[in-house]
Amino acid sequence: MDAPNVTPVMRPYLRMTAMFPAGRDTPRDFLERCLAALDGWEPKIGAFVTLNLAGARAAADRSSERWRDSRILSAIDGMPIGVKDIIETIDMPTQNGSPLFDGFRSERDGASVAALREAGAVILGKTVTTEFAATEPRGTRNPWDQNRTPGGSSSGSAAAVAVGAISAGLGTQVLGSIVRPASFCGCFGFKPTVGAINRGGSYDGLSQSVHGPIAASLGDAWQVAYEIASRVGGDPGFPGLHGPARPPAPAKPRRLAFLETDGWALATAAARDAIGEALAKLKSASVSVATRNDSEKVAAAEAAIQGAREFSVRLNTWESRWPINTYRARDASKLSKAMLDRGAQAEAMTLDDYRADLNERARRRAVYHALAVEFDACITLTATGAAPIGLGSTGNPVFAAPGSMLGVPAVTLPLLRDAGLPLGLQLMGFADLDALLFATAGGVLEVLEGGE
Amino acid sequence: MDAPNVTPVMRPYLRMTAMFPAGRDTPRDFLERCLAALDGWEPKIGAFVTLNLAGARAAADRSSERWRDSRILSAIDGMPIGVKDIIETIDMPTQNGSPLFDGFRSERDGASVAALREAGAVILGKTVTTEFAATEPRGTRNPWDQNRTPGGSSSGSAAAVAVGAISAGLGTQVLGSIVRPASFCGCFGFKPTVGAINRGGSYDGLSQSVHGPIAASLGDAWQVAYEIASRVGGDPGFPGLHGPARPPAPAKPRRLAFLETDGWALATAAARDAIGEALAKLKSASVSVATRNDSEKVAAAEAAIQGAREFSVRLNTWESRWPINTYRARDASKLSKAMLDRGAQAEAMTLDDYRADLNERARRRAVYHALAVEFDACITLTATGAAPIGLGSTGNPVFAAPGSMLGVPAVTLPLLRDAGLPLGLQLMGFADLDALLFATAGGVLEVLEGGE
Repeated sequence: MDAPNVTPVMRPYLRMTAMFPAGRDTPRDFLERCLAALDGWEPKIGAFVTLNLAGARAAADRSSERWRDSRILSAIDGMPIGVKDIIETIDMPTQNGSPLFDGFRSERDGASVAALREAGAVILGKTVTTEFAATEPRGTRNPWDQNRTPGGSSSGSAAAVAVGAISAGLGTQVLGSIVRPASFCGCFGFKPTVGAINRGGSYDGLSQSVHGPIAASLGDAWQVAYEIASRVGGDPGFPGLHGPARPPAPAKPRRLAFLETDGWALATAAARDAIGEALAKLKSASVSVATRNDSEKVAAAEAAIQGAREFSVRLNTWESRWPINTYRARDASKLSKAMLDRGAQAEAMTLDDYRADLNERARRRAVYHALAVEFDACITLTATGAAPIGLGSTGNPVFAAPGSMLGVPAVTLPLLRDAGLPLGLQLMGFADLDALLFATAGGVLEVLEGGE
Repeated sequence: MDAPNVTPVMRPYLRMTAMFPAGRDTPRDFLERCLAALDGWEPKIGAFVTLNLAGARAAADRSSERWRDSRILSAIDGMPIGVKDIIETIDMPTQNGSPLFDGFRSERDGASVAALREAGAVILGKTVTTEFAATEPRGTRNPWDQNRTPGGSSSGSAAAVAVGAISAGLGTQVLGSIVRPASFCGCFGFKPTVGAINRGGSYDGLSQSVHGPIAASLGDAWQVAYEIASRVGGDPGFPGLHGPARPPAPAKPRRLAFLETDGWALATAAARDAIGEALAKLKSASVSVATRNDSEKVAAAEAAIQGAREFSVRLNTWESRWPINTYRARDASKLSKAMLDRGAQAEAMTLDDYRADLNERARRRAVYHALAVEFDACITLTATGAAPIGLGSTGNPVFAAPGSMLGVPAVTLPLLRDAGLPLGLQLMGFADLDALLFATAGGVLEVLEGGE
């Protein structure tokens, strides 16, 4: 059994399933190891808001039978998964990190949850989210240092994956809510192309928001996303996640674009050194790395993502006018000051302001997309450094905001360290080329760590 | 007081508000006239599933004070409105026309409802919808002939507008659900450009679906849509309804394209004659009308909309895979056979099929859009004839499906008759040019009826 105050250890799933057909291990045994980790860690980190232990054990037993009988439903049959508490679940409340939704039951599964159950996954519980997946934290602690934030808004999913209580947690990202907590908690994180995963039955309706997994391995992350999209598609009207039925094979990139982003000036010295070393290693392995100083296209992309955080906040604010207005009308005392402030800012905006921002976003996306003809991916930090001390904020999303604004896929790899704590290395790809990004991320992982 | 078995009479709002500032009439008095009509008609037609009479009267009183004190919130301050029961309301359940949602309360307003309340509108109740806004009727009767369907899926909104119980009802259309019931009940109907009205907090998540009003006048329809979009925008990521703050001035079109659509072969002789007479009148008023026989572009558009109904159904079916799967898992006995069949059809489709259909839809939209350089609008029937006898089906959407598939704005005017019953004349415009379509519709109304 995992004990608190030891180093958190993740529990990847796909690579363990090789033991299942012969019966030397089973999904139920796997789940019990997860639950032992949960027992030890949960009182310290507070990753879950609701658990369905009986339902999870029953689902794991059914999966164990399927593995034994060679009739599994998917490659993730039996995988223990947590669901961010803004996504509806038929067996548990959906409380949105808000007292306005205390005990609220939608009596159905969101699209991603329904798909995961069809794929045989084991839904263990609902993970803590900030208030409505925005900024107000709800108490989850970072397992690497319980005085630090786990990041947000997918706080509980990241913390629970980090300690091996689940192999993957569903998150959502509109600014930095998947890759930032994954970075702070030392997990893999995947923010797909906008629209790639069906958000039906979730409360993240903003135009930049997307569902994606925080996971214990790169392969687990791909497989979870694939199994959802192949069953319920992407958002209606979008083509959905493109790519193969198993994790893309690693492919060492030929050419990467290093993006400083607005974050570079705010990054710790150790964070800068850490990515500097990673880039040096990649170069020694014959990967070419261009920067704003030696490529006009990269310089143009850096200009296009300037102010991505503030720009995205403005878009998100207008798009939040509803539902903040109806929540406020119901009971303003149950909204955080941050949420009320956002509501007030939204009231001061007009549809014309928003339209101008949409046009500007399309322009920025086109400038960035020009990199696709020359580079396999962009590479940068996922955060300015290790998770900050304190639970009052979920940290700075400055490195995550460009990928969100651009709507492109982003993957964070737990390869770097700052002050002895996890820090993510981020790869950003191009719209709808999520599979290519995974191949590149796998190649980078092989160069820097010898692979998964 | 209106008595049953008399001709239904609509109750337009905007033109009545001129009486309010002087106090010769008030929104409360207007509402009481609506409620008298409701008393007489509702037992015969069953348009509402839930009413909030006390809330409506209180809202009308507040509006009366605002009109008296010259501090109205919008041009529709005080307008009695019904809300299709797939759109969330804070004060009433949202039951989706399904026993799975019996008594379900979301405890918030959908975006369009929140905006209408901010505009001072009086929300009278929730109007009957077919099961999940699809095909299974829920008993509403056509006020023109109670043995006939009112159309669907926005059945209750159309029937209630027709009898003057409300001035406008919110509807949604993914195939024919706004313009068809408006045609059958003799109302004005407006299906905006896809994305033009924020669908937040509604259960119509399909990519072709859009919110729009069924209304007692063309001006009422515009104003309702405008007041929503200006407050909560369109769907996130869409530019929202474009156009002026008051109904666009009528403008007689110069050139219209007459579209037969797949519906022509199915239209009654009287329906064909009726639109033929309308076209003849327009020509006498120097409006040029092109057909597939004298314009290659019109012929190409006719080809592009061929099979629009079946094609749309296929898209809708894949996009309905969720949530049908989670509803079925909860209690399949509470779904209609039609819904279960759709679920089974969805299971047989793949994401690749859907992607191919999305590409084909984009191609069809581009072909149609080429008409915009030459024509002010397209003109056609709204339905194959009067509402069919019987309550088991909501009628054929064949004339409505092209506009839905194309994502373009459509307006239906209650100008035609078939067998002494209402039949709509439909005008279809071009994406984001909803205001231009209203100007044209106003011009057509002036030519054919001397205006509103």
